[in-house]
Amino acid sequence: MNIDELTIEEIAQEISSLYKQKKYYDIKQLIVEINPADIATLFDEFSFDQKLLLFRLLPKEEAAETFVELDYDEQEAMIRAFSDTELKEVIDELYLDDTVDIIEEMPATIVKRILQNTDTQTRASINTLLKYPEDSAGSIMTPEFVDLKRDNTVEDAFKRIRRTGVDKETIYTCYVTDESRHLIGVTTVKELLLHDYDDKIEEFMETNTISVNTHDDKETAVILFDKYNFLALPVVDMENRLVGIITVDDAMDVLQEESTEDIHKMNAIMPNEKPYLKMGIVETWKSRIMWLLFLMVSATFTSMILNSFEDKLSAMIVLTSFIPMLTGTSGNSGGQASAVIIRALSLNEISFKDIFKVVWKEIRVGFLCGITLAAVNFVKIWFVDRALLGMSEITIWVDLVISLTLVIEIMFAKVVGCVFPILAKKIKLDPAVISSPFITTVMDALSLLIYFWLATAILKI
Amino acid sequence: MNIDELTIEEIAQEISSLYKQKKYYDIKQLIVEINPADIATLFDEFSFDQKLLLFRLLPKEEAAETFVELDYDEQEAMIRAFSDTELKEVIDELYLDDTVDIIEEMPATIVKRILQNTDTQTRASINTLLKYPEDSAGSIMTPEFVDLKRDNTVEDAFKRIRRTGVDKETIYTCYVTDESRHLIGVTTVKELLLHDYDDKIEEFMETNTISVNTHDDKETAVILFDKYNFLALPVVDMENRLVGIITVDDAMDVLQEESTEDIHKMNAIMPNEKPYLKMGIVETWKSRIMWLLFLMVSATFTSMILNSFEDKLSAMIVLTSFIPMLTGTSGNSGGQASAVIIRALSLNEISFKDIFKVVWKEIRVGFLCGITLAAVNFVKIWFVDRALLGMSEITIWVDLVISLTLVIEIMFAKVVGCVFPILAKKIKLDPAVISSPFITTVMDALSLLIYFWLATAILKI
Repeated sequence: MNIDELTIEEIAQEISSLYKQKKYYDIKQLIVEINPADIATLFDEFSFDQKLLLFRLLPKEEAAETFVELDYDEQEAMIRAFSDTELKEVIDELYLDDTVDIIEEMPATIVKRILQNTDTQTRASINTLLKYPEDSAGSIMTPEFVDLKRDNTVEDAFKRIRRTGVDKETIYTCYVTDESRHLIGVTTVKELLLHDYDDKIEEFMETNTISVNTHDDKETAVILFDKYNFLALPVVDMENRLVGIITVDDAMDVLQEESTEDIHKMNAIMPNEKPYLKMGIVETWKSRIMWLLFLMVSATFTSMILNSFEDKLSAMIVLTSFIPMLTGTSGNSGGQASAVIIRALSLNEISFKDIFKVVWKEIRVGFLCGITLAAVNFVKIWFVDRALLGMSEITIWVDLVISLTLVIEIMFAKVVGCVFPILAKKIKLDPAVISSPFITTVMDALSLLIYFWLATAILKI
Repeated sequence: MNIDELTIEEIAQEISSLYKQKKYYDIKQLIVEINPADIATLFDEFSFDQKLLLFRLLPKEEAAETFVELDYDEQEAMIRAFSDTELKEVIDELYLDDTVDIIEEMPATIVKRILQNTDTQTRASINTLLKYPEDSAGSIMTPEFVDLKRDNTVEDAFKRIRRTGVDKETIYTCYVTDESRHLIGVTTVKELLLHDYDDKIEEFMETNTISVNTHDDKETAVILFDKYNFLALPVVDMENRLVGIITVDDAMDVLQEESTEDIHKMNAIMPNEKPYLKMGIVETWKSRIMWLLFLMVSATFTSMILNSFEDKLSAMIVLTSFIPMLTGTSGNSGGQASAVIIRALSLNEISFKDIFKVVWKEIRVGFLCGITLAAVNFVKIWFVDRALLGMSEITIWVDLVISLTLVIEIMFAKVVGCVFPILAKKIKLDPAVISSPFITTVMDALSLLIYFWLATAILKI
């Protein structure tokens, strides 16, 4: 049987049938072939007792790799079921940064048990890592890296990697430090392989090193990965001593999380790290209700504006028909600008100093979009709404008011959409809080004011 | 002078002053220390002739690495200024996948010159790579990887890596193939380093390999990186022969591009790969106008609905005041659901088979959000809009109509928001085309219908 060609469901069925026949040895043979990330998915198909049995059939290393892939709830339940020996075995196999991630999510009793089952040195490292602020580079780094000395030869380096490399998350980037652990150079296994055995590291190491500080934002670190195509990035402390590295797989996870967070925030949702299907109803409600409430209450302004123009609207009720189109278009225009700007800020493509360049660009784009839409709208209203749909109240002046409103509101929307996120970032707020719904709410009020002002001026109502 | 501590602007000033003194050797000493990604940024500060001079001062390898980081426009201008020898030198140093990326963006005359300056074998590889469809795994792979045979020893492997590795984009993952180039196993330099020199590869290679097909979507490939934490992923052709690999840095780029694309599409913008500041006004206008036009014209439906209820609105003009709040809230609610679902689909967290689970969840979340907002709104309208703002037309029944509309429209919005993206994906459309503005437009019409239907039924107007 070639497990490559089976789906997770098929493997689960196979295991279930082996399980019923108590053929545990066969199950073991089957699951050791499977990638830990897939075993974790497979686990969803089994009861907790079955999971535990499957887990215990795995060799130590695979067991630890599978453990990391489980949800925190499952990890907690597993740890509760583990004996101390089992727990110690799993923890010993984990990379330190993964242990810390798990500890951060566990209740105090479990944390205590984990710490009791680690040796003194590991416990000290864990405690240091736990102190870094959430979202800092320190919080996602691992202190396990290959460090070399400048006068090591290539042969020394390989000896060291062979001896200590098995426990390191990556061995491919090696860091050269001086006596006080300052980072003085970087080299790679590729470089080592391409040099002679008796060449000294200092002869070819890269000395212009790029690093982040433990307290830098993790986003700062991830942007460096994207820019320089690193496999690992060194992290230094306040005294500039090398204390850890961030690996590319963790950087990729951060990248995905940050994009998800941005997308959620841009749509007025409070970020939550859990996958969609794992979030409860109340949790989902919580993540959505605050912004909905805020935006709903903010709409009181639009109600007030409409109310204060009530007389004019009664005088010419046809004006009402175009309100959703006008507010919708300005919201869409502003939302486009804010989405583009928020993303460009995330990718470090623009910064505060570009604000005038950006505004000037958006004014021109807004003008182009405005006149295009106004022209189409002018013709459409005249021939469709008036002639075809028979809205007899529409005069050429009404048509003009609506079309002119489009041009002006779109230019405003583009400027509001681009300025707000840049200013938010300037005052250290996340630009993504300037969500499209927020822009829409602001533009609703602004568009109505423009509309009624033009209607009053041109139609003399 | 320690260039680590200088900003790009300071280095640019330093170079400018050295340039004026014609101290080219000093400039060279300075720029060889800088990372190619930063040299590319630095280039923005100089005129084209100065750029060309700086470029010519760089050693071959750094020159090629810098070249890759430039915009396509700059690359084109540079190539036009290069002699054939210079062009050949740069192309020789580039990784094949980068050469192909550049060729795809260049006009025919430049492509011809590039191909004339490559050897026969490279030209053949380039032509093969150019044939893969855009957005396919084949289009982002490189054919340069380390391949081993199953009976190679660790020593053989290292010899081969030392001999051929310098030109490979990564050497850390090695692929074991049989005589007909089928992929039969994978190993890593880490494994090689941890085994004895005379161990055979087949004894410890991983045989349960995970690969993609050249014609698979590049997103499929990138999701595998995210799931399995690979440094490289093998790509096989229709006959299952290994033809290339995708490296993690390219996967990360794809990830960023796809997120940007999703964010743009979700906000009714047609995707464009250029960074914000590099896009011209007309290009920006083009990327935004189509959706704005479509959505504006779609709003004709809301105008029609409003127009057909004109008599009822004139009878009770206060109902108009709450239209933007009601349509805004339903749009926001639907936008939240669609954003969450589109992202979950991108991350492969949910698929079509989950549709009923998702709908049932959104109905319940919608109900919770609906009654919360309705309760707040009921009280707010009564005490703020009626009492404080003096909208005397508001009766308890009007308040009830508005609040009931909220509950019903929000439940509809949540369902529409989650079902549309899942159905889009089912019919092979990009779910992100179901943008928030699109959901908003649909919900505008639907909300008005619910509002007027309830108003007619309850207020007997």
